[in-house]
Amino acid sequence: MLRINETRLLNDLKELARIGATADGGVSRPALTPADIESRRWFQAKIAEAGLDYSMDGAGNQSAILYSDPPSEKRILAGSHLDSVPNGGRYDGSLGVLVALEALRALKDKGITPSVTLEAVNFTDEESAIIGLMGSKAVVGQLTAADFERSRVDADELTRRFSALGITRQSMLAATRADVLAWVELHIEQGTRLESAGIDIGVVNAIVGIRSIHVAFRGEAAHAGTKPMELRRDALWGAAAFVLRAREFVMENFSPGVVNVGIIHAKPGAFNIVPAEVYCALEFRHGADEEMDEMEADLIRLLEECAAEFDLSVTYEETPPVIPATMSESVMRAIERGAEALGYSHQRMLSFAGHDTQNLAAIAPAAMYFVPSVGGISHNPNEFTSDADCVNGANLMLHTLLELLTDLA
Amino acid sequence: MLRINETRLLNDLKELARIGATADGGVSRPALTPADIESRRWFQAKIAEAGLDYSMDGAGNQSAILYSDPPSEKRILAGSHLDSVPNGGRYDGSLGVLVALEALRALKDKGITPSVTLEAVNFTDEESAIIGLMGSKAVVGQLTAADFERSRVDADELTRRFSALGITRQSMLAATRADVLAWVELHIEQGTRLESAGIDIGVVNAIVGIRSIHVAFRGEAAHAGTKPMELRRDALWGAAAFVLRAREFVMENFSPGVVNVGIIHAKPGAFNIVPAEVYCALEFRHGADEEMDEMEADLIRLLEECAAEFDLSVTYEETPPVIPATMSESVMRAIERGAEALGYSHQRMLSFAGHDTQNLAAIAPAAMYFVPSVGGISHNPNEFTSDADCVNGANLMLHTLLELLTDLA
Repeated sequence: MLRINETRLLNDLKELARIGATADGGVSRPALTPADIESRRWFQAKIAEAGLDYSMDGAGNQSAILYSDPPSEKRILAGSHLDSVPNGGRYDGSLGVLVALEALRALKDKGITPSVTLEAVNFTDEESAIIGLMGSKAVVGQLTAADFERSRVDADELTRRFSALGITRQSMLAATRADVLAWVELHIEQGTRLESAGIDIGVVNAIVGIRSIHVAFRGEAAHAGTKPMELRRDALWGAAAFVLRAREFVMENFSPGVVNVGIIHAKPGAFNIVPAEVYCALEFRHGADEEMDEMEADLIRLLEECAAEFDLSVTYEETPPVIPATMSESVMRAIERGAEALGYSHQRMLSFAGHDTQNLAAIAPAAMYFVPSVGGISHNPNEFTSDADCVNGANLMLHTLLELLTDLA
Repeated sequence: MLRINETRLLNDLKELARIGATADGGVSRPALTPADIESRRWFQAKIAEAGLDYSMDGAGNQSAILYSDPPSEKRILAGSHLDSVPNGGRYDGSLGVLVALEALRALKDKGITPSVTLEAVNFTDEESAIIGLMGSKAVVGQLTAADFERSRVDADELTRRFSALGITRQSMLAATRADVLAWVELHIEQGTRLESAGIDIGVVNAIVGIRSIHVAFRGEAAHAGTKPMELRRDALWGAAAFVLRAREFVMENFSPGVVNVGIIHAKPGAFNIVPAEVYCALEFRHGADEEMDEMEADLIRLLEECAAEFDLSVTYEETPPVIPATMSESVMRAIERGAEALGYSHQRMLSFAGHDTQNLAAIAPAAMYFVPSVGGISHNPNEFTSDADCVNGANLMLHTLLELLTDLA
């Protein structure tokens, strides 16, 4: 049975971890900073060394290419991203790019010419140093000039970072692709579900949607001494009740969906004044739009119940949502067939974090799978996935591509 | 039966309300601002007009004096304060000074020479424009040089305000009195208990103590998507549970004691991060130190229960407390006998706000009583007490002084 080259893969991981290495064992490679540019140069050299073809598009997305003969009109893409959050870990994104590269090398080593051209891709700025999921957004035609205005770096810095790569805002906006036949991504789980369940592979069936709501409970400011408690309209009472009930309600009715109140503050804000107004930042995530709609309706009903119970008013304002991305059944099945061929246990699960896959899903059959993260630690120098799981992930990438080639040829 | 002059009292109230009047019917007379200085001049003129003696001590406290013959060594004092919060009401403090003045005038009108010298006092800066309860604090010897360092106005402004009155920090610190035989104060309730119960007079049996505690719940920051809810250590869950349980617990077990969480915020503070730490400002008030101790022990037990329930830690730090002031039984009885003679209904109750009486209680038998506040509104231009209740309050001041003279002569 075809296998990847373990030594080569693990050596790549080690070499790559030296680029942008931090003192505590992590890496810092925010998009288009010198460390990210260095990792791109390293990736290009590895592609050349492997005798694969190389290309970079107008969005700075890099590809290793293994052509079919003759080159097919459309291509099967696999990959992830080499950039990291500041002071992040060695596996988030990197492992996904390296297993895709390794799968192509393993095919090439065996002299296999695929029936459809294969690409191993490094997408630009997955981690939002500039614009969230920028490279994949450009490829699927969802990047707009307005995104540059909302960049996390200023206009001059944006120009500087783009020039370091020889790209421009114009080339970025023109990077749309129409040749994607299918997409598959490996990522570390960044959670503990696989580890707790002792499962090798998590087949992602949806990347959750995210809705964010600004909430304000309003009651009446009062003297915290003279106003009897039974006459108070304390905005914090309503907010506190909502925090607890939303927690219980979502755990009971929408698991594994999640809810978070991450910001809270009271006005006027003094020891001796009953809060007149409490602001909360409410966020919730789930795997499908129907579930999100139901969750939202229920959470808003809860907000109103909590307000009414304490004689308060409540207002809420939504920010633009992240739409859930449902994964392709055929690509999920290709992953699962690959896992079964290799003897890896697997289960379907939601991805609660965003990934380039959610963009690719808009233009092609797409899916992704997870390998276990030890302790669920991520975006942290202590992020860790065992060598065995890295190797499993690479073998599964190889066999998923073989399954997709069989399906799609 | 001896009565005060209603027309004169109500006219005084109207005249005084013009000084520092705001457009919406309130008054703004923060201590030693031009409006407060003007109200002091007006008070001095009223005293002269009534043929009473006048004095001002080193703390700027003004007195109308009706001497006994020969002048007694000790004196019975009554009064309150003419200063107001910015944009405050016409009754808070003012009514207490005016009823004391009116009681002395009524005695003088009838040619009554009291068996003990009587004073109607206007205490400086009750409302904390500079230092809370400054004038009465000076009189009872509790003002220290350190208080000037903690003044709400800067050192130059403090000097300017004191000079406007011809006083200094030194004269302020030397204003201690040893000649107080008893103290009584009328104040508006600033609450709705009298109004709701249809009672004329609230005889204050204690001015509540106040304890303030900085509380911090600590859990663990986490990704608000990937961290399953059952594994989160969300500091806001513990804080929210505490807010609700403290409310219920105090209402059930310590009524009319009160608790307030007036400040709350979460760190790191983002839509997509589970709160690692939540800070709360906790304040509670009750009428006696034993109750305060019990309340504190119970609230701290609740804090720890709420932390444990959500796998959090909790720390707390107390700020210097305000000690509850128990009122003198003999002065309360004098008030109650006066009320009964006049046919006014009365009940004992706690004062949940601070008053000069709590300072006077440290050096002499002291008590105070409330007249109803319409809707409990106070520190607000809409503060209102009916003419009938103002007149009742003044008649009761007259008869309380007569009762005290009988008791203490």
